[in-house]
Amino acid sequence: FLQHGWVMGSPASTYICFHFVNAFPLILLDLLPAKNGEEATMQFLLELVDILTNYVRKSFDRSTKVLDFHHPHQLLEGMEGFNLELSDQPESLEQILVDCRDTLKYGVRTGHPRFFNQLSTGLDIIGLAGEWLTSTANTNMFTYEIAPVFVLMEQLTLKKMREIIGWPPGEGDGIFSPGGAISNMYSVMIARYKYFPEVKTKGMSAAPRLVLFTSEHSHYSIKKAGAALGFGSENVVLLSTDERGRVIPADLEAKILDVKQKGYHPLFVNATAGSTVYGAFDPINEIADICEKYNMWLHVDGAWGGGLLMSRKHRHKFSGVERANSVTWNPHKMMGVPLQCSAILVREKGILAGCNSMCAGYLFQPDKQYDVSYDTGDKAIQCGRHVDIFKFWLMWKAKGTIGFEQHIDKCLDLSQYLYDKIRNREGYEMVFDGVPQHTNVCFWYIPPSLRGMEHNSKEYREKLHKVAPNIKAMMMESGTTMVGYQPQGQKVNFFRMVISNPAALQSDIDFLIDEIERLGRDL
Amino acid sequence: FLQHGWVMGSPASTYICFHFVNAFPLILLDLLPAKNGEEATMQFLLELVDILTNYVRKSFDRSTKVLDFHHPHQLLEGMEGFNLELSDQPESLEQILVDCRDTLKYGVRTGHPRFFNQLSTGLDIIGLAGEWLTSTANTNMFTYEIAPVFVLMEQLTLKKMREIIGWPPGEGDGIFSPGGAISNMYSVMIARYKYFPEVKTKGMSAAPRLVLFTSEHSHYSIKKAGAALGFGSENVVLLSTDERGRVIPADLEAKILDVKQKGYHPLFVNATAGSTVYGAFDPINEIADICEKYNMWLHVDGAWGGGLLMSRKHRHKFSGVERANSVTWNPHKMMGVPLQCSAILVREKGILAGCNSMCAGYLFQPDKQYDVSYDTGDKAIQCGRHVDIFKFWLMWKAKGTIGFEQHIDKCLDLSQYLYDKIRNREGYEMVFDGVPQHTNVCFWYIPPSLRGMEHNSKEYREKLHKVAPNIKAMMMESGTTMVGYQPQGQKVNFFRMVISNPAALQSDIDFLIDEIERLGRDL
Repeated sequence: FLQHGWVMGSPASTYICFHFVNAFPLILLDLLPAKNGEEATMQFLLELVDILTNYVRKSFDRSTKVLDFHHPHQLLEGMEGFNLELSDQPESLEQILVDCRDTLKYGVRTGHPRFFNQLSTGLDIIGLAGEWLTSTANTNMFTYEIAPVFVLMEQLTLKKMREIIGWPPGEGDGIFSPGGAISNMYSVMIARYKYFPEVKTKGMSAAPRLVLFTSEHSHYSIKKAGAALGFGSENVVLLSTDERGRVIPADLEAKILDVKQKGYHPLFVNATAGSTVYGAFDPINEIADICEKYNMWLHVDGAWGGGLLMSRKHRHKFSGVERANSVTWNPHKMMGVPLQCSAILVREKGILAGCNSMCAGYLFQPDKQYDVSYDTGDKAIQCGRHVDIFKFWLMWKAKGTIGFEQHIDKCLDLSQYLYDKIRNREGYEMVFDGVPQHTNVCFWYIPPSLRGMEHNSKEYREKLHKVAPNIKAMMMESGTTMVGYQPQGQKVNFFRMVISNPAALQSDIDFLIDEIERLGRDL
Repeated sequence: FLQHGWVMGSPASTYICFHFVNAFPLILLDLLPAKNGEEATMQFLLELVDILTNYVRKSFDRSTKVLDFHHPHQLLEGMEGFNLELSDQPESLEQILVDCRDTLKYGVRTGHPRFFNQLSTGLDIIGLAGEWLTSTANTNMFTYEIAPVFVLMEQLTLKKMREIIGWPPGEGDGIFSPGGAISNMYSVMIARYKYFPEVKTKGMSAAPRLVLFTSEHSHYSIKKAGAALGFGSENVVLLSTDERGRVIPADLEAKILDVKQKGYHPLFVNATAGSTVYGAFDPINEIADICEKYNMWLHVDGAWGGGLLMSRKHRHKFSGVERANSVTWNPHKMMGVPLQCSAILVREKGILAGCNSMCAGYLFQPDKQYDVSYDTGDKAIQCGRHVDIFKFWLMWKAKGTIGFEQHIDKCLDLSQYLYDKIRNREGYEMVFDGVPQHTNVCFWYIPPSLRGMEHNSKEYREKLHKVAPNIKAMMMESGTTMVGYQPQGQKVNFFRMVISNPAALQSDIDFLIDEIERLGRDL
């Protein structure tokens, strides 16, 4: 006899998982599709779920560490029975479960309320449920034939996102792609196809020298797209910004004129809505005016900022976005959808398919019994495409549009709390003045030993440059919290605090500041 | 009081899920990170797991249909309480669970033993467990900092795959990418960077007109890469094949000479190892000789065939693969890893990073406390990258190399069984002669009404062209099994049977043939 279950006592938070020890060892060949493999399969999956739900509970528990740091060589040498090497012979299922537990143990709890290290943080339970279902369904987005429900969910969700952007109803297109960098790459490809469709068949030699424009503060994926797609990274012109990291429109126009004078063709402008480091929003309307004047494609990279479109309070930062030709928007960042979930949205219908279709006969048969306009695969640069939509659709169902709005507003309030807390606090210096536009709060912590020094001296700059990396290293060693740092232009290393984690509270912000001071005061 | 659990009676396969009805309705705000949200979270997740495990059990049950087909307009109009539209207001968690159940109900059971529709079929329980864990960990592959264990697993697994290819130990590189099309795109980018590194900065105008070669039977992603990366699809030259779909080396050489005579530069040859429709393996050694002679990059697209490298019996079909400069290999196809899992492997170390790096300061800080050579993100064209490695690593642990070998050999044996069964059977005609090289068995079913007709007549061809789509439509309506069809060149629609599903048995092959005859006999 085999028995397995959870008993939950309410209201206590103790969960007892019981199973008879003699149930193991099971081996792989006991599992489905083995004959009579149901029971072993259920047992194995429930054991795993026990490990996973324990991990989830602990991830939200502030007494648990964010990470248990080890160096690569330590993990490679093997940790107490956790051996990463692959072998010819199978392991027992018992060992597989141990491997699962250890994988989580030595990882980073990105859902922890004190994990602030990336733009994507938090662990949304509905989103998690969506991912578990997605992997159980294990299908592919290329045709309606094998993903009918997911294909329709994607279509409806993209339509809703375009409405929120403010494009005319009934128009437009889009697709979910594997991340913001690929979404941005799509935008460049589509822009090129719009103005020089013959490049698709004849290559870049069929067009004049094409130039892309994006700000110094924009994401590196625009430059990467320029390199990959055959423009060359030197033909990606970086625009100057104001002290807050926002594009200066006059600089854009001057650089367009300069490029035209050289005989090159200005093709594309990327306006960033929520830059990676400063959280800056470029002035879309003024950029759109210039794009119209010079007949250029306007892309808005809202990978990070996109979520603010859901907030009546904050969407004014996107003013003019409805004039864009394409928009990148990553629900996996500010909206807390599990990784990954990124949309490229396009105002003009048909152009995405025109740009990418190759009409593979084995996949996109025109003589199917259903309306094959729902076979979306040929719009993509991918063939197989992971189902990234379901978790997002399910979260939208569970939260409603207003739930996303509340989450966004709460995160921005929290970042305002942090800003108010440190802007006049001893030992802190803000990287730029004024209330941040997004949740990015950029600051230097100045240890007591540096506080009297001349700010412009080489020694001060060199010492300050090392403060954030030192604190970060100690933070990771002690495993209490995580926050990012980087230099930017001439500015030495500073902390970039970002808040997208729905679990974070004011007390977690307080904890972060205390921790920075505890670890940094003797530097 | 709240109680929830499974009681499993052994050996009977009945599972009883019990919970007090008054436990619901819970709402979203009861879940973590809500204060005291643990219990509601556990309850919700366990309810979901109950839905998922039921789905898993039924997917392996031959008395369950493969799909319950509905047309797009039917699903869009809403099915008995299943409404795909998104709204401003939240739904109850009870409705969310109903949505989950309905999403699975109207989907396609790709793990069903009689689902043969794609190259990726089956539902591996260990792989599924790996995906559930991956989504619970919810992290990103770009740095060791936030994915220490996964980054090392990827490194070790790629090393093992390169060893299996047969490249010199200690050399080489690679990365997991979102599917075979992107992996193939990487190979073209790297080849261009190897021979014309200045294209990265200066664009395609810095190089002569570059030409790519790939067979008529190869995957359309090479052409898509040519279009996307600025070569132009007309500069992707298609090679003729023999009647089995294998590249004719003399045709390659003739076309290279032709291109050179025109003053263009032959850059890259793609040899397909396991073509999509015929399962053909191009002769790698002969192609490698030509690539050496003309100093060209040799890529092997083993997206579909790659699994055969694990089989001592079948890997001879890859003879010469160790001479390739790069290889695409999708464990999510023949090896049964859940979607998606695709590797691009490169023989030369450093070139992947050279080609793609942009050194973003905010992500890849050089002054971290650990060995930053483990930060792999800058090698990718993506920024954020989904963790595709863990499910594969876990399956490898659980099966061992020999487990993959057994799976591959079994699938090829099954396809041989199908081939032997139908090649002389009345009413069948093979699309090409001889034992297939992979599990692809391509055939026409000729309904009795067509059997006496002149094969070369227009009427016969037109009628036969409609047979496979008609049978497929009826198959989907009845939901009993699924198999793909397509035309190829001058050949009218035929069935392409592929076997990668570990659940498939000889009786399922018999069932498929019976079903084709049942549905097709009156056409």
